[in-house]
Amino acid sequence: MRAGPSQEDIRRHNLGTLLRHVHLGGPISRAELTSRMGLNRSTIMALTSDLTAAGLVREELPRETGRAGRPSLVVRPESARVYVFAFDVGPDRLAVARVGLGGVILDRRESVRRRGPFDLTELTGELAAAARQMRRKARHDAVCVGAGAAVSGGVRRSDGVIRFGPNLHADEAPFGEALGRRLAFGLPVSVGNDANLAALAEHSRGVGVGVRDLVYLHGDVGVGGGIIAGGHLLGGHDGYGGEIGHMVINPGGGQCACGSRGCLEAEVGERALLEAAGRSPEEGHQGRDAVRNVVDAADRGDIVAQEALRQVGDWLGLGVANLVNLFNPEMVIFGGMLREVYLGSAAQVRSRMAVSALAPQREKLRLRTSALADDATLVGAAELAFAHVLADPLEVLARAGG
Amino acid sequence: MRAGPSQEDIRRHNLGTLLRHVHLGGPISRAELTSRMGLNRSTIMALTSDLTAAGLVREELPRETGRAGRPSLVVRPESARVYVFAFDVGPDRLAVARVGLGGVILDRRESVRRRGPFDLTELTGELAAAARQMRRKARHDAVCVGAGAAVSGGVRRSDGVIRFGPNLHADEAPFGEALGRRLAFGLPVSVGNDANLAALAEHSRGVGVGVRDLVYLHGDVGVGGGIIAGGHLLGGHDGYGGEIGHMVINPGGGQCACGSRGCLEAEVGERALLEAAGRSPEEGHQGRDAVRNVVDAADRGDIVAQEALRQVGDWLGLGVANLVNLFNPEMVIFGGMLREVYLGSAAQVRSRMAVSALAPQREKLRLRTSALADDATLVGAAELAFAHVLADPLEVLARAGG
Repeated sequence: MRAGPSQEDIRRHNLGTLLRHVHLGGPISRAELTSRMGLNRSTIMALTSDLTAAGLVREELPRETGRAGRPSLVVRPESARVYVFAFDVGPDRLAVARVGLGGVILDRRESVRRRGPFDLTELTGELAAAARQMRRKARHDAVCVGAGAAVSGGVRRSDGVIRFGPNLHADEAPFGEALGRRLAFGLPVSVGNDANLAALAEHSRGVGVGVRDLVYLHGDVGVGGGIIAGGHLLGGHDGYGGEIGHMVINPGGGQCACGSRGCLEAEVGERALLEAAGRSPEEGHQGRDAVRNVVDAADRGDIVAQEALRQVGDWLGLGVANLVNLFNPEMVIFGGMLREVYLGSAAQVRSRMAVSALAPQREKLRLRTSALADDATLVGAAELAFAHVLADPLEVLARAGG
Repeated sequence: MRAGPSQEDIRRHNLGTLLRHVHLGGPISRAELTSRMGLNRSTIMALTSDLTAAGLVREELPRETGRAGRPSLVVRPESARVYVFAFDVGPDRLAVARVGLGGVILDRRESVRRRGPFDLTELTGELAAAARQMRRKARHDAVCVGAGAAVSGGVRRSDGVIRFGPNLHADEAPFGEALGRRLAFGLPVSVGNDANLAALAEHSRGVGVGVRDLVYLHGDVGVGGGIIAGGHLLGGHDGYGGEIGHMVINPGGGQCACGSRGCLEAEVGERALLEAAGRSPEEGHQGRDAVRNVVDAADRGDIVAQEALRQVGDWLGLGVANLVNLFNPEMVIFGGMLREVYLGSAAQVRSRMAVSALAPQREKLRLRTSALADDATLVGAAELAFAHVLADPLEVLARAGG
C-alpha cells in the first residue's frame, strides 16, 4: 500500500508502455499512439524522441496515407539493432534464437536432443557456443539487451535453478547461472518453465491476445501448463505455479515420473497415448512424430488408434473440466503435442467436459489450439528477456552499452 | 496499456490507500502513515484533513507516547458513523450484520435456515427486514455506504445472479437485484461466492494477512474455495473462479450435487464424512454439529469415526496436493467445517500430500486453519461492500449523503 508514483516513475512507465505497443503491435502511427495511450501529442512526441535517440525505435513517413493533410509519422521497432537471445531446452530438442525488438526471429538454430542424462556443462556449452556464433554474425551496431530460456521443468524464479525436470532428467540444476557464465555477455539469463512461457507467448503474440484469463496446456513428453489470470501469469509463491500435469485425476491410474499416480501427465502424456495405441514408446518410436502417427492412423480408420485417442481424450476432457472449474478462463489453448491430441479427440474432450465442467464456466469458453505451435516456448523465452527492457527501456539499453 | 495516472487519479489513490491502512490496520499515527506510504508529512496532513472533513476518520492525540516532543496525531476510523451491511446466505444459516469502517461488527443477527427450497422473495424479505431494524437503531448521523452479500453458490460478478447453488437449491436466482430492491436504501448490493469472500476475509483480516498467494478451502454442506494469486482474488472471466469443490479427484467416486462424479465435494463434503462414519445425514443429524460429533468421537477412540476421518483426510490431502501443484501457494487455509475435518485428520492429509504434491511446492508451504472461523464469510461480505469506499472514499461518501 504505497503512495502514487513519482514523475520519473510515470515517465518510465510511459516509455515502457509506448515501446510495448511498438514491440507487440508492430509499426504504429504517432496519432494512433496518442489515441491508445490517452496522452497528448506533445507527450507522445517527447517519448518517441527519447526512444529514437536511444536507438530503440525509428520514425518514418508512412508509404501511403490515402488521406489529405500532413501524415502522422510511423514508429517502428529497431528490430535489427536491439535484440535478445532466446533458448529452449526440451526433452527432444535444443533451440537458440536471436530475436529482435518487435519479436522478429533474426537467426535461429535447432538441434535434436537425445533423451537421457542431463549434463549441465555440455548443454550450456552447446547453447552458449551457438549464441556466440550468432552474435558474431549480427550487425556491428547491434546490441544484445537480454537473454531468456525456457526449460522443461520446475524453475525457481529467483535464481533459475531447475528444481525438478523428470523429462530432462534434471534435478536441482543451476541452469540460469551456468548458462550466464558460459555466455559471458555480462547479462543475466532469465529462466522459466517452458509451458509457462508458451502461455505468455500465446497471450502476447498468439491465439490468446487480448484474453485476460486463459489456461494453456502444453504437451511434450510430459504435460505442463501456464495460467494467465487477470492478464498476469500465475507464478505462485516461488514461480512453480501452473503444474497442471501433476494434478491427480485418476488416483488408481498410471505411475507418473513425479512419483505420484494418475496425474494428468500419466493419463494424457506421450507415453500414455503411445501405449494405449499399442506402440511401445522406445527409441525411434517416440516424440512428436510418433504422436502424429497415431492421430494420422486414427484419421485413416485404425481402430486401435481411434480407441487410444478416445481414451486419452476422455482424460484430457476431465483435466480441462477441472481447470475450467478452478479458473473460469475465457479460453483454453492446447499446445505442443496436445495440439494434435486435441484435434484428434475434440468430440471426446467436449463430451467429457459437458459432464464435469460447471455450466456457467462452460458457456463462454473457447477451446483453441496454439497459434505459435512449436515456436511458442522459444517466443516465450524471448518475451521473458524483453520484459526487462519494457520495464525500463532507457536504463536497460544504457547498461547494455547501446 | 494506457498512460500514467492524472493528478486527480493519484489523489484518489492516495486517499483510498490511507483509508485502507486505517480500515485494515486500525488506529495509526500520522508519522507511521508518512513512513508506510512513502509520502511527505504535508501530503499526509492534507489527505487526513480531507478524510476528516468527510467524516471518514478522526484525528486524536495518542493517550501516551512514552517519548519526549510533540506526539504525532493518531488517525482512527469513524466506525460508529460510516458502516455497511453484510449478509450471509448459507445452506443452514442466515446472518445480517452492520459493520463499521475498520471492520467493527456494530450489530448482528443470525437465524437458522432450514435446508429446502429457495424462496427468493421470502429470503430477501427476511434479510431486508433485519437490516432495516438495525438501521433504525443506528446513531442518527450514521451513514450506510454499501452492502455486500456472501452466498453459497456460483455468482455472476456483473449482476449478482446466483447461477448455480445446489446446496441452497438456488438456480438462476437474481439475488443481488432482489435484495437491493427490498432494502430500498438506494444502494446496490455486491454479491459474491461465500468461499471467495471468506478467502478475501482471511487475506485481509485473518490468518493470511500479508500472504500474497494462498488457497482457502471452505467446507459447509458442500466444498468451495477462494484463491488469492499475487495478492488478488482469482475470479476468472465472469467471477466463477475457485470452484475447487468441483475438481474431480476420483472419477469412479460418489455422485456430486453438480451432476458429475468424484468431485472433491463428493469425497470430503459433509455427506461423505457422515456416511463414512455410519451416520446417515438426515434432518437432525447434519450440519456443523454433526461434523463436530464425528471428530469428537474419533478423539474419544471411536474406530468407525477414526476410519471415516482417515478416508476423508486422504481425499482432502489429494485435493490439496492438486491445488498446491497448480497454485504454488505459500499457505493453505482450512475453513468452515473443513477446519474441524483437517484438525481431525492432519496426519493423513500431510501423508497424502507427501506423495502427490511436488517437493518444491511443498517446502515453504504452511497449512493453517481459518482465524475468523464462522465469521469469515460475513467479514468477507463486509469487505466486498467496503471495497467501493476504499476505491474512491470522498465520492462514495458524498453519494451516500454523508
